[in-house]
Amino acid sequence: MNEFEIIQLFFQQPTNTKDKNVVVGIGDDAAIVQVPQDKQLVLCMDTLVSGTHFPDTASAADIAYKSLAVNLSDMAAMGATPYWITLSLTTPEFQSNWFEQFAGSFHQLADDYSLTLIGGDLSRGPLSVTVQLQGLLPIASAGLSRVGAKPGDDIFISGYLGAAAYGLNTILEPEQWDAATGDELNRLNRPQPRVELGRCLLDLATSCIDISDGLYSDLSHILNASGVGAEIQWDDVPISSSLHKLDRKTAVELAITGGDDYELCFTLPANTSCEAIDGLNTICPVTKVGKINDGSKLVLKDIAKKEIILSKQGYKHF
Amino acid sequence: MNEFEIIQLFFQQPTNTKDKNVVVGIGDDAAIVQVPQDKQLVLCMDTLVSGTHFPDTASAADIAYKSLAVNLSDMAAMGATPYWITLSLTTPEFQSNWFEQFAGSFHQLADDYSLTLIGGDLSRGPLSVTVQLQGLLPIASAGLSRVGAKPGDDIFISGYLGAAAYGLNTILEPEQWDAATGDELNRLNRPQPRVELGRCLLDLATSCIDISDGLYSDLSHILNASGVGAEIQWDDVPISSSLHKLDRKTAVELAITGGDDYELCFTLPANTSCEAIDGLNTICPVTKVGKINDGSKLVLKDIAKKEIILSKQGYKHF
Repeated sequence: MNEFEIIQLFFQQPTNTKDKNVVVGIGDDAAIVQVPQDKQLVLCMDTLVSGTHFPDTASAADIAYKSLAVNLSDMAAMGATPYWITLSLTTPEFQSNWFEQFAGSFHQLADDYSLTLIGGDLSRGPLSVTVQLQGLLPIASAGLSRVGAKPGDDIFISGYLGAAAYGLNTILEPEQWDAATGDELNRLNRPQPRVELGRCLLDLATSCIDISDGLYSDLSHILNASGVGAEIQWDDVPISSSLHKLDRKTAVELAITGGDDYELCFTLPANTSCEAIDGLNTICPVTKVGKINDGSKLVLKDIAKKEIILSKQGYKHF
Repeated sequence: MNEFEIIQLFFQQPTNTKDKNVVVGIGDDAAIVQVPQDKQLVLCMDTLVSGTHFPDTASAADIAYKSLAVNLSDMAAMGATPYWITLSLTTPEFQSNWFEQFAGSFHQLADDYSLTLIGGDLSRGPLSVTVQLQGLLPIASAGLSRVGAKPGDDIFISGYLGAAAYGLNTILEPEQWDAATGDELNRLNRPQPRVELGRCLLDLATSCIDISDGLYSDLSHILNASGVGAEIQWDDVPISSSLHKLDRKTAVELAITGGDDYELCFTLPANTSCEAIDGLNTICPVTKVGKINDGSKLVLKDIAKKEIILSKQGYKHF
């Protein structure tokens, strides 16, 4: 079976024809789509590399899910609605069973968001997956961005943090951590992108980012881009229930510095109505964790207003 | 130096602001572009993996050039005009010198085509480069595609074939081939995408593809997609002048089955005016090599109309 047969068998879905804006899908030198006149195009690209972003032992289904989910999370962070996928898959060999599991999982998540796979590439080499998502935003909207947080804004987090980092730690340092539960591994391998929340934040939030490298690291991107500082209330950080088995300091530190949560961190003007925040809470839990200030640093405070210094600040690439 | 510093130093060019359709460029969770209302969006994605698509010894500058050029070639094959680049670069380590050479070469080719790098990803792992190009086509155009070749159409090739394959052979099997000239290695490492030719073919050609896996293999894609057959005149295939040092059969076979030429293979209705073909020849040499027929096979004929059977048919992925 060669490259073209694999593409035809596993990736060239009849769903190609469902989206009337897809003019040319899989099977030519390039895809052609029609962007509606009242929309802007939003593009994000993320690569997952075996041994760097997922363990060598990860299942094809989990790799497929995560490679699409992390891109959906970027779309969520922009407040955009995703539509079209391009996928470049590099694998060391052709195993029909592996491709079947990968494609099954990939198409299932794509279907959940009514996405169409319109093109990509298939190569031989060390296992790696690059996904680009094409999404849309209303033409008048500036989208959500990292720029725009203002002193006085409240800082919010969706969901609960730390379970994915706990799951990863049990894989990387099994002697130091009790084995992860299925829920923790699920949070690591199958993060829940907050696309619906992102869309609802479009007219509310002053800034937004998705938490891929840890709250501390990613909130710092908002602060740098917006030219502001922030104070986070250590005790208000929503930690995953599975971390309650750890001592409090370890748990909160995991929640603040651990990556792979793919929750949204966003800022709302202080005068945002309770009704609006209640509306967000009907989509998923959102928790206020601190406040933007006119400083330039990210400071963590405990309940007695004493500063807390972290032992590490988040996942670093390179 | 971490991921974000590398991106800022080497990839976040001031050119980000030149294109007024780029609303958000590098530096957020996603990029935002405005697609003009009279245009369709064209998307192609290609990955080059070290050891598969280029030798481990390839220079950073050549890898950067080729990863962008092969995508420009896909745009050319669609008749589209490229505008915006997304780049995912995976490298085993951070060497400032390597990134400087890669970025310098990448930006130079991007500037030659007035392209803007709007986003992407940077990861640690085995060396691999994924580029996606976003281009535009007039809204009324169906673009060039592999579908559309009709019995009676003439088959044309741009440029000359075989030098890139010769260059590759001297690297893979040095004991069997005399060392490649600079020109041959240049054709392998720095193919010339035929973007201008593709644009001019938009209203002329009935089908088009770029020759990445060899004329035999890529023309077969046109035949399969269009449901037709073809006859190629062996002696009319334009071979690179550097292949004249080989015996004629070896040279033509390299030209027909060797990959990496990135010339265009296209079909024109038999009644296309000489004036139109002369116009194409002012952009680059184009040569008629055969005719589409109502069969289903690709047949090679010598000057005495005798069929020629190839020893191999082209580069196979997997």
